[in-house]
Amino acid sequence: MTTVAAIDTPAVLIDLPRVEANLTRFQNYCDAHGLAARPHIKTHKLPDFAHRQVELGAAGITCQKIGEAEVMVASGIRDVLLTYNILGAAKLARLKTLAEHCTLSVVADNEVVLQGLADAFAGGPPLTVLVECDSGGGRCGVQSSVDAVRLAQWIERADGLRFGGLMTYPPKRRIEAVRDWLAEAMHTFQRAGIACQVVSSGGTPDIWRAHEVGAATEHRAGTYIYNDRMMVGAGAATWDDCALCVLTTVVSRPTEARAVLDAGSKALSSDLGGLTGHGYIREYPDAVIHMLSEEHAVVDLSACTGAKPAVGERVRVVPNHACVVTNLFNQVHGIADGQVERVLTVEARGLMQ
Amino acid sequence: MTTVAAIDTPAVLIDLPRVEANLTRFQNYCDAHGLAARPHIKTHKLPDFAHRQVELGAAGITCQKIGEAEVMVASGIRDVLLTYNILGAAKLARLKTLAEHCTLSVVADNEVVLQGLADAFAGGPPLTVLVECDSGGGRCGVQSSVDAVRLAQWIERADGLRFGGLMTYPPKRRIEAVRDWLAEAMHTFQRAGIACQVVSSGGTPDIWRAHEVGAATEHRAGTYIYNDRMMVGAGAATWDDCALCVLTTVVSRPTEARAVLDAGSKALSSDLGGLTGHGYIREYPDAVIHMLSEEHAVVDLSACTGAKPAVGERVRVVPNHACVVTNLFNQVHGIADGQVERVLTVEARGLMQ
Repeated sequence: MTTVAAIDTPAVLIDLPRVEANLTRFQNYCDAHGLAARPHIKTHKLPDFAHRQVELGAAGITCQKIGEAEVMVASGIRDVLLTYNILGAAKLARLKTLAEHCTLSVVADNEVVLQGLADAFAGGPPLTVLVECDSGGGRCGVQSSVDAVRLAQWIERADGLRFGGLMTYPPKRRIEAVRDWLAEAMHTFQRAGIACQVVSSGGTPDIWRAHEVGAATEHRAGTYIYNDRMMVGAGAATWDDCALCVLTTVVSRPTEARAVLDAGSKALSSDLGGLTGHGYIREYPDAVIHMLSEEHAVVDLSACTGAKPAVGERVRVVPNHACVVTNLFNQVHGIADGQVERVLTVEARGLMQ
Repeated sequence: MTTVAAIDTPAVLIDLPRVEANLTRFQNYCDAHGLAARPHIKTHKLPDFAHRQVELGAAGITCQKIGEAEVMVASGIRDVLLTYNILGAAKLARLKTLAEHCTLSVVADNEVVLQGLADAFAGGPPLTVLVECDSGGGRCGVQSSVDAVRLAQWIERADGLRFGGLMTYPPKRRIEAVRDWLAEAMHTFQRAGIACQVVSSGGTPDIWRAHEVGAATEHRAGTYIYNDRMMVGAGAATWDDCALCVLTTVVSRPTEARAVLDAGSKALSSDLGGLTGHGYIREYPDAVIHMLSEEHAVVDLSACTGAKPAVGERVRVVPNHACVVTNLFNQVHGIADGQVERVLTVEARGLMQ
């Protein structure tokens, strides 16, 4: 068995016991609050972890790309929510095939998308469609519950479609906004006489307050499996909860206050998520990664009072955003007790369409 | 032959005639100024384009990773400068194999790296090592020309190494700083009686002023093959010179002023490079991509006076930074006259170590 010391850098290390603890905690939380858990696999893109999430009690998984869903279904996952507006003949044909092999739901927030879905699925078993709602996140989604009802009615009228409920990706740290938006929507749907079987909210930043979104029947979370510097910043996790890090080597110490690591924006990504700096160095918590180029991280050691890292030393960086980091690596190393227990191929990476 | 209309989104399109024009222009510029061209392949990671760069007259190529160099040498490239401090037994063993199959130079800015190189190459044909200098970029590199001489002398004393000259990655838009740093270094080396065969500067932002770095014998540039929004911002290219774009589909129009594209930080990256916004939409130059999530780009259309994009419409985004975008895709589409002439696999992508 390989030790961590034998892994060349930069490399992604996944602390397997921490993963298990993170998965279990979220599932227990959902169980305690009567919420269905529907983990988003965009974070890990690994069939093995998706299966573990389902084993622990998840109702199914969430995917953001058809390619992700195809990999997961091929591995035996049987319930998928694809939280994306699907458009175009090529994707619709793949969606139809996918629906033959799993319980599939998708979302839509406009009639053009609905028309495409309806045309593709007409005459066959109906596809479940949730209406995406913009509860303040400012991305996709209908702007009012009246518009949501209008699309729900459109779906109910369509031959190949079945209305499944509502889905929203909520604004971060504004759980009251989501709660109020969905509560009002529940009234509007009730008045219209339309049942919402599923009301799906999501996100890791507010994961431990998910039950406060009263109308939600399920919660989708992705990052919670690994956590990262953004989630620590949001108060959703501690450094101990962070299961993913990038193992790097100090390749240069040009000045007393500067170190350079062999992981740049092609390993850590440039995602800031509102933070200053590009990651947290476990061994040097006062160090600041203040600049990334493609293959270098430049570290300011000014605030480090004790020993400073030497050239050749290896340090572990908890990245700002775990989901984009796994997307940059073809493989990640599953670690337990300092040993490489599994090398996992990030199977659903790079499936752009 | 496939048309662009048949490509599913998001996808990277490479305008092949523009690539050819960009490559030719840089080579002609170098020829006119007596500079050796040494294109950095980290931008395209494609053997085909590296070979074209050499055919047009490049002295060799530049790589940032051993994995990149291995792919290029396997494809028949015969002269490689690896502009990175190489450390560790695994990488040094690969470096030694690489040196058996091409004319290889590397860089170093400290004795730990030099000792590793010397140990690995002792007793065999000497490895050419350039001393990396920090001419103001604030990344790797020795801080003074006296330190550069000291390392050059270390290299000359080492059995398996040969001093090749100096290398710097200059600060952007401060060509005077590089010029002055290297000019002073030339004096210091002259006084020490050490010849610098190669003085290698680089970067695309100041590419057309490379000849002003008087001491430089060669220029390394990467981005110039494609150009991007950062290079247009730096005045090094026009939109017409941008050969790479990400073809995307408008998947949502939640409000009058908002559109959402199917390309997020996993397609465009989050690199800002000092800019506001995440790319330039060719069809809607006044639109602002103001927010990226992993698979969505949120576009503010407030400033668009004419028609606004409809759901299903496809638009081309010139990204902020082309080099990190190609690193996110497994394949890119080479386009000429609206037709897909070649689908190129980004062979050197994801080779992290």
